[in-house]
Amino acid sequence: MAIKTPITVAYGDGIGPEIMQATMKLLDAAQAQVAPEIIEVGEKIYLSGNTTGIPDKAWESIKRTKVLLKSPITTPQGGGYKSLNVTMRKTLGLFANVRPCVSYAPFVSSNFSNIDLVIVRENEEDLYSGIEHRGTEEVYQCLKIVTRPGCERIIQYAFEYARKFNRKKVTCLSKDNIMKMTDGLFHRVFNEIAAQYPDIQNEHLIVDIGTALIASNPERFDVIVTLNLYGDIISDVAAQVAGSVGLAGSANIGNQVAMFEAIHGSAPDIAGKDIANPSGLMHAAIQMLVHINQPEIATLIENAWLKTLEDGIHTGDIYSPEHSKKKVGTREFADAVIARLGQLPSHFKAAHYKPGAYAKIECYGAQPKAESRKELVGVDVFLDNPQDLTAQELSGKIAGLGGPMSLIVITSRGLKIWPDSSIETPYLRHCCCRFQSSRDIKQLQAVSHSDIINLLARMNEIGLDTIKTENLYTFDGELGYTLAQGQ
Amino acid sequence: MAIKTPITVAYGDGIGPEIMQATMKLLDAAQAQVAPEIIEVGEKIYLSGNTTGIPDKAWESIKRTKVLLKSPITTPQGGGYKSLNVTMRKTLGLFANVRPCVSYAPFVSSNFSNIDLVIVRENEEDLYSGIEHRGTEEVYQCLKIVTRPGCERIIQYAFEYARKFNRKKVTCLSKDNIMKMTDGLFHRVFNEIAAQYPDIQNEHLIVDIGTALIASNPERFDVIVTLNLYGDIISDVAAQVAGSVGLAGSANIGNQVAMFEAIHGSAPDIAGKDIANPSGLMHAAIQMLVHINQPEIATLIENAWLKTLEDGIHTGDIYSPEHSKKKVGTREFADAVIARLGQLPSHFKAAHYKPGAYAKIECYGAQPKAESRKELVGVDVFLDNPQDLTAQELSGKIAGLGGPMSLIVITSRGLKIWPDSSIETPYLRHCCCRFQSSRDIKQLQAVSHSDIINLLARMNEIGLDTIKTENLYTFDGELGYTLAQGQ
Repeated sequence: MAIKTPITVAYGDGIGPEIMQATMKLLDAAQAQVAPEIIEVGEKIYLSGNTTGIPDKAWESIKRTKVLLKSPITTPQGGGYKSLNVTMRKTLGLFANVRPCVSYAPFVSSNFSNIDLVIVRENEEDLYSGIEHRGTEEVYQCLKIVTRPGCERIIQYAFEYARKFNRKKVTCLSKDNIMKMTDGLFHRVFNEIAAQYPDIQNEHLIVDIGTALIASNPERFDVIVTLNLYGDIISDVAAQVAGSVGLAGSANIGNQVAMFEAIHGSAPDIAGKDIANPSGLMHAAIQMLVHINQPEIATLIENAWLKTLEDGIHTGDIYSPEHSKKKVGTREFADAVIARLGQLPSHFKAAHYKPGAYAKIECYGAQPKAESRKELVGVDVFLDNPQDLTAQELSGKIAGLGGPMSLIVITSRGLKIWPDSSIETPYLRHCCCRFQSSRDIKQLQAVSHSDIINLLARMNEIGLDTIKTENLYTFDGELGYTLAQGQ
Repeated sequence: MAIKTPITVAYGDGIGPEIMQATMKLLDAAQAQVAPEIIEVGEKIYLSGNTTGIPDKAWESIKRTKVLLKSPITTPQGGGYKSLNVTMRKTLGLFANVRPCVSYAPFVSSNFSNIDLVIVRENEEDLYSGIEHRGTEEVYQCLKIVTRPGCERIIQYAFEYARKFNRKKVTCLSKDNIMKMTDGLFHRVFNEIAAQYPDIQNEHLIVDIGTALIASNPERFDVIVTLNLYGDIISDVAAQVAGSVGLAGSANIGNQVAMFEAIHGSAPDIAGKDIANPSGLMHAAIQMLVHINQPEIATLIENAWLKTLEDGIHTGDIYSPEHSKKKVGTREFADAVIARLGQLPSHFKAAHYKPGAYAKIECYGAQPKAESRKELVGVDVFLDNPQDLTAQELSGKIAGLGGPMSLIVITSRGLKIWPDSSIETPYLRHCCCRFQSSRDIKQLQAVSHSDIINLLARMNEIGLDTIKTENLYTFDGELGYTLAQGQ
């Protein structure tokens, strides 16, 4: 007998316990070689005063087994409770959200019968770092952060996934026509890594058009890799047009730990009624079995599930007089799947996860490259300008304060308002004053941090409220910042 | 005879001239009371060395007439050419992108026959300010900027639009569960302004679910108002599921100037062949006629266009054997619409823009409120940490440098890495060191700009590369910044 793989299991809140019982019963019947450790996370833990919702004992189990199968949980309203998923993602470095999306028409209503795509979403960066600042009465800011290792890791993961799962194409979505540096980096790294996988097709789409195509023509996609926010949006779009929001599982993958869950929530309104559909968690369990290298069991369960669907044994959420034969509850649905273990679907293509094909995918990004020569060449100083000094007045006050740096341009919301601005009613409250060591970006000289500190001190002396700074660097002579619109 | 309204007209590039000729012929036949001034913008101007694509003479005309009807233009590849649309939007303060989206099934293929929604997209702020910085070898950043007047203006516009055009509901999309300050502001202002329009229903949806609903259930929407990036994505999704990418017009509205155009591009591959569909520009012209208060002419043209579509007179892009009677070119299509001026559609609901209802919508946001009491209470100093000093080492070096401020937390990509971090392999290259006047956010005292400058000077003395700062403020005692994940 095989040695059982320890896994950590969280029964969750709302409908969580019911669907987990159904799923565990199925795993057991299919003879999955797993040794579950049960942890308690979620609502009870939050309400006991632990704002993370996850006690030390639970952490220990997860870190030991490195595999978590998790039911949905309920985060109580208010009170500074932190999202358990965000905490786990960040703390455990679960950099990849992997979400297969399949349509099951005609048994589950969808305009598309052949959706079979996988979204690989970057999980740690982008605007979701939640770094926000209010610099003036009226102006709020959020930082979008994108790193090269972050891009390398997720994109490498997408291509490795495509190769292992015999997928043909990876599509990258970004908005690099507008965000030339951040999204530009993502696209550039995509091109670099795609070149290492000549057996996999690749393409890049601008995210607006890409999202529209996922909505209107989802069958054209295979693997999609994208940044965090876009991935969030397209995951919902794809699940919705496939009709599979209630049926889909999702994996959050790190190089050490992986977490598997349904994509739906804890639905407290129907909890305890034995009517919830356990399919989302069952699909998560299938992903988990593949991950822990039990592909035969995954195949067995997925085919039995497909056969159950085809046979019209449906929970209420997908019941239709036309395509259903019997409306069942959570337990009866699980029993129906168990009764079909060993059977194959006839309408749908049978699943077949090849033995030995899914050694865990670990991605550490490219080897560090030679560092560029980094040179400080100026600074953007942002001002709160509550008296609405005109850009002309401002420039008069500060143009002489830069020491070795000259005032090059003043902008507002990225738009040049000095010099030579043709804007009739510029927004003056929040200004960015760009000082560079030379007006000509081809003649930039190094300046020092002291030069910037001196500038800030002089601006402070004349009573200006400098609210933030962004140093301006070149890397191997290339600008590390965008030019202002109109600069 | 009415006095003709001067308008500025740009024939554009690619298919631009053909579709504009067709549209102008239609306006003429419908006796639109307009006096066109022709300007040249776009490819030729770019290639003559003007990187904005728009010469002074064109600016003068636009600023005089305050109305621009514009064909698509071609921006040459490379060479630092700036997007003409972005320049015009920003320079002229065109804060609202207004994009009606209608389905014309069965004549134009769509899964939905009753889409009739209008997207009101904020046009000047958000990540599209294009303010990007590279602070380290590996880390790139883009600023998302959201202002209260920007939110007020666009949301007020959406409600004014809804009222004037007899719309019933305004839906707001944001991601304020993650971006509590920036998107939170948008949502808060939405609630404030919605309360002033009790005759209009209102709702808020998280943008991922909202976008999924636009893809799967677009008929539930009426007016949608959202931030720039989300608006960009959902505009494409809505047009695509409606099947009307080639047929739709769009308005860019400022308090002074408004620009009207088709949503499609210049399609140089089919230029000069008399096969392009002029419908998108015709719809833009209809929007323009409503804007300049010629609603009768707008009604006349829209009904003739609908009748032409119903009669199966179709250009090649929407031709289908099932629903088309005749395949026509650009000119013949325009003639067919002209021949139907005065007729009403029978399948589609006839348009009826009420006379006198559409006085130009001007939105200046709410009156300035009493300013909050703003207090400087600390600073986030971001470091490039190329030697990967551990958070523990870093804290040892800098904890004593804050003067009246204490080192509270060190974060990386928004995640706490000091103190008490449970992260096993934190990303150290790009760190944020938060100094506050007190550990307890309820006990924060004011610090001075000099305190921050002194801290920067001391960090510089020990050789740290401080790459950016974000001052920490309170406003009337409320935090003007988010707490770090784990703080």
